[in-house]
Amino acid sequence: MPTSLDPIPTLIEYLRFPSVSTQPEHTKDVVACASWLEALFQKMGLSTEIHQTPGHPIVMAKTARDPKKRTVLIYGHYDVQPPDPLPEWTSAPFEPRIDEKEGKIYARGSSDNKAPTLAHILGVAQALEKKGSLPVNVIFLIEGEEEIGSPNLAAFLEEHREELAPDVILVSDTGMAPGNLPAMTYALRGVATMKFIIRGPSHDLHSGLFGGAVANPLTVAARLIASLHDEKGHILIPGFYDAVQPLQAWEREAAAALEKASGGDDSIKELAGVTELFGEAGFTTLERIGARPTVEVNGFGGGYQGEGTKTILPKEAFVKLSFRLVEDQDPKQILELASAHLHKQLPPGVSLKIILGHSGEACFVDPQSKDGKAAQEALRESFGSAPFLLRDGASIPIIAAFKKILGVDTLLVGLANPDCDMHSPNENMLLKNFLDGIKLNQLLLEKLS
Amino acid sequence: MPTSLDPIPTLIEYLRFPSVSTQPEHTKDVVACASWLEALFQKMGLSTEIHQTPGHPIVMAKTARDPKKRTVLIYGHYDVQPPDPLPEWTSAPFEPRIDEKEGKIYARGSSDNKAPTLAHILGVAQALEKKGSLPVNVIFLIEGEEEIGSPNLAAFLEEHREELAPDVILVSDTGMAPGNLPAMTYALRGVATMKFIIRGPSHDLHSGLFGGAVANPLTVAARLIASLHDEKGHILIPGFYDAVQPLQAWEREAAAALEKASGGDDSIKELAGVTELFGEAGFTTLERIGARPTVEVNGFGGGYQGEGTKTILPKEAFVKLSFRLVEDQDPKQILELASAHLHKQLPPGVSLKIILGHSGEACFVDPQSKDGKAAQEALRESFGSAPFLLRDGASIPIIAAFKKILGVDTLLVGLANPDCDMHSPNENMLLKNFLDGIKLNQLLLEKLS
Repeated sequence: MPTSLDPIPTLIEYLRFPSVSTQPEHTKDVVACASWLEALFQKMGLSTEIHQTPGHPIVMAKTARDPKKRTVLIYGHYDVQPPDPLPEWTSAPFEPRIDEKEGKIYARGSSDNKAPTLAHILGVAQALEKKGSLPVNVIFLIEGEEEIGSPNLAAFLEEHREELAPDVILVSDTGMAPGNLPAMTYALRGVATMKFIIRGPSHDLHSGLFGGAVANPLTVAARLIASLHDEKGHILIPGFYDAVQPLQAWEREAAAALEKASGGDDSIKELAGVTELFGEAGFTTLERIGARPTVEVNGFGGGYQGEGTKTILPKEAFVKLSFRLVEDQDPKQILELASAHLHKQLPPGVSLKIILGHSGEACFVDPQSKDGKAAQEALRESFGSAPFLLRDGASIPIIAAFKKILGVDTLLVGLANPDCDMHSPNENMLLKNFLDGIKLNQLLLEKLS
Repeated sequence: MPTSLDPIPTLIEYLRFPSVSTQPEHTKDVVACASWLEALFQKMGLSTEIHQTPGHPIVMAKTARDPKKRTVLIYGHYDVQPPDPLPEWTSAPFEPRIDEKEGKIYARGSSDNKAPTLAHILGVAQALEKKGSLPVNVIFLIEGEEEIGSPNLAAFLEEHREELAPDVILVSDTGMAPGNLPAMTYALRGVATMKFIIRGPSHDLHSGLFGGAVANPLTVAARLIASLHDEKGHILIPGFYDAVQPLQAWEREAAAALEKASGGDDSIKELAGVTELFGEAGFTTLERIGARPTVEVNGFGGGYQGEGTKTILPKEAFVKLSFRLVEDQDPKQILELASAHLHKQLPPGVSLKIILGHSGEACFVDPQSKDGKAAQEALRESFGSAPFLLRDGASIPIIAAFKKILGVDTLLVGLANPDCDMHSPNENMLLKNFLDGIKLNQLLLEKLS
C-alpha cells in the first residue's frame, strides 16, 4: 500500500507494477496495482470500491456526494502496454529511473497513463488536505483494460449510469501540444479497421507458364490499395467525405497558431524521421493529422518472402487497413463504403474477402462551451499563457461511449510530453508536467464548480 | 551413388536430393547431387568431369568423340526451386511419392528438371547397352544454377567453346502441350527480375499521430505496382513494347490448332485453379502466355504481419517483380525502362531502392530448319501424330547464350505434363512421359545423326 502521498515516491511505487493488461502472466500484477490504488483512495478518505469484470477490475472512488455541487468524473487507466522490445530499453521498464538532467522519469506506463492519472488523484488529495473539502463532487474511474480496447467499461457505465450521473468528465490520456506547450484537446479521430484477402489461383503458379493469362492477386491487391487515394492523397472511396464538415475559421487559426509556436513541419519531420512530409492538398500538416480522415495500409503480404527470386504468380495476398475518422463519420458506414468500393474493382478470376476489425467513433468537444472555457482558464492560470486548442489524430473510443451512455462531454487536458515515447521503449514523463498537473487539477476542479 | 540404371528407382534416388540452389543451407545437398550424377555417368562409361564454379558445380559427361559423327549437346539442370510453402505439400517434397492411380511421381524437381534430364541420360544408357555405341557424339552438360539464372554457365561455355563445339543442342526443360500433347517448343520467353524497396519514416509510426501527414511506404509500393498495367492488363511502362513484333500468321494458326486440340481456356483454367482467366485484350490465352511480354508481382511485404490489428504507418515495404519477355526485347533495357518509370512516380519523403536480379533473353528457333524437322519426325514416330508447335511462356535464359556463344540452335522437346505444378507445391511428373522420353531420346539421336 502507498507509503505516503509525496508525489514522486508515490509515482515510483505506482510505476513499479507491471500491470500489462494484454498478457495473462501479468494478471496478478494488474490486480495488485488495482489494490494499491484502492488503498491510496482509502488513505485519502474516499469511498472506494473495486468492481470485478470479466476481465480486469475497475477501481471507483468517490467523495461524498453533495447535491448542491456539480459532479466531475475523472477517468484514467492503470494498465500499461507490454514493454517489449526489452533490449531497446536503457533501464528496466518497471524499475522507474529518474534522469535529473532531463527532468524525466523513465518507466513503462509513466506517460500512458499513470503519471497523468496520479496527477488528478494527488491534486484531489492536496486540495482535501488543504481545505478539507472540494468545490465539486469527484468520482474517479480508473480502469485496467484501456490498452486492450476497454471491453468491459461500456457495460459498467450502463450499469452505473444513475450512480455516476456526472456533469462533466475529465481525462488526461492525451498529450501536451508539440513543443510541450499547454493545450486542450477538443477533438480525437475515430478509428475503423479491416483486413482484406485477395484469392486467385488455387495454388502458386509458375509466372512463365501462366503469367499474362491469370489475374495476379498481388497486382489486384496493389490496384485496390492504389484506388483508395488520388496522387495528392485525397481519398477516392465514394461517399467517404460526405459527413466531413469543413474546418471552421477558428480551428484553422488555432492550428496555424500552434504550428507557428511549435516549430511547425520541421519538428514533425524530425519526430517521424522523414525527409519530407506528404499529405492531402489544401491542408496544413496539423490539420491533416488532427482534422482530416485517412486510410493507411498497416501491413500487406503475399507471395515469395525469402531471399532471392521465386518467379511465381502467387495465389493470394492480404492487406490490413486502418481508417482514422473525424466527427460525424460513422465507422461502420465507412467500412461499408470501403468494402463496396473494393468489391467493385475486381478483375475476373479473383475473390475478395473482407474481415472487419475494431472501430470507434471520433469525438469533438466544443472548447467554447462553459466547461471548455473553464478548462482553458485553469490552463491559462497554471501555465501563464492561453492554452493551444488541439485536434489529436489518435483515437480514444471510450470518449464517444461516455457521451452516448452518460450524456456529457469530456474535457481532454493532456499532460504527456510529446517526446514521451508512449507505447515505445523508453517511455518517459517529464516530471515538471506531472507536478504542474497536480496543481492544474486543483484549479480545474475550482473552475468547473 | 546410383544403385542401378532401372528408370524409376534411379529417378527416386535423384529426387531425394534437396538441391535447392538459391538457399545457402542446401549447398551441401547441391554438391551431393552433382556427385551422384557424376557416379551415374561413370557407371555408363562416359568420360565425366565436375567443374567447380564460383557457385554450384557443372557436371559434364561425354562419349568418345568420333569426328565423323555429329555432336549433340544435351543440357539440363539438377538444381530445384525452394519447396515452400511446405504445409501445402501432401507429401514431403524430397521424399518422392508415386501415386499409382494417377501414374505420377510427386517431388520437388520431378518435372523441373530431374525426370526430363534423366530421360535423356537413361536414353543414352539404354542405347549404349543395346548397341554399344551411339549414332552421334553426345555431351551432357547438367548444371546446378538454372533456378537462379545460370550465373556461371556462360563463362563455362566461353571457356570450353572449342571443346564443346556441338552441331545442335537438345533441351527437355519445357512441357508437353496443354492436354499432355506432344509438342516442339519453338520459342521461350526471356526473363528479367528486380526487387524494389520503398523506405519512408525512420521507424514505424503511430497511424493516429502521423497518419495523413507522411507518405506511407506500403501505399507508395502499391501505387507503383498499379502503375505497371492498365485495367485491361496492357503494360504502361513507356517503351516496353517497342521491340515486340506482331505474331506471324502461321504462329496464330499453330496456337489456334493447339487451343482446339487441348481443350482451350477450360483446360488452362483447370490447371491454374481459377474461375476465370484474365489478360491483355486482343490475344488468345495461349498467345498471352507464349507470345506476349508480362510483368508479374512475385511477392510483396511490409508492416504488420501478425494476427489482429496494429495501427502503424510502417517504415518500409518490398516488392519482387519478374518480367517475361519476347524475342528482340533486351532484358537489361527493359529493367532500365521499368526503373525509370518507377522512379518518376515517387511522392515526397520516400526513397526507392531497386535491386536488379537475374535476366535472360527470349529465344526463337525456326521449327522448319533441318534439325527442327528431324525433331518433329522423331516426335511423330514416337507419339503417332504430328507434334504441335508451341510457344512456351517460361524462360531458359541459357538457350540464348548457347546460340550466342556456341553458335547453334537448341531443340526444345519438353516432357513435363502440363499439370506438373512446376515451381509449386506438389510438383509431379507423369511417369509415362518420363518412360516415353527415354525412348524418344534414342529416336531423336538417330534422326539428328
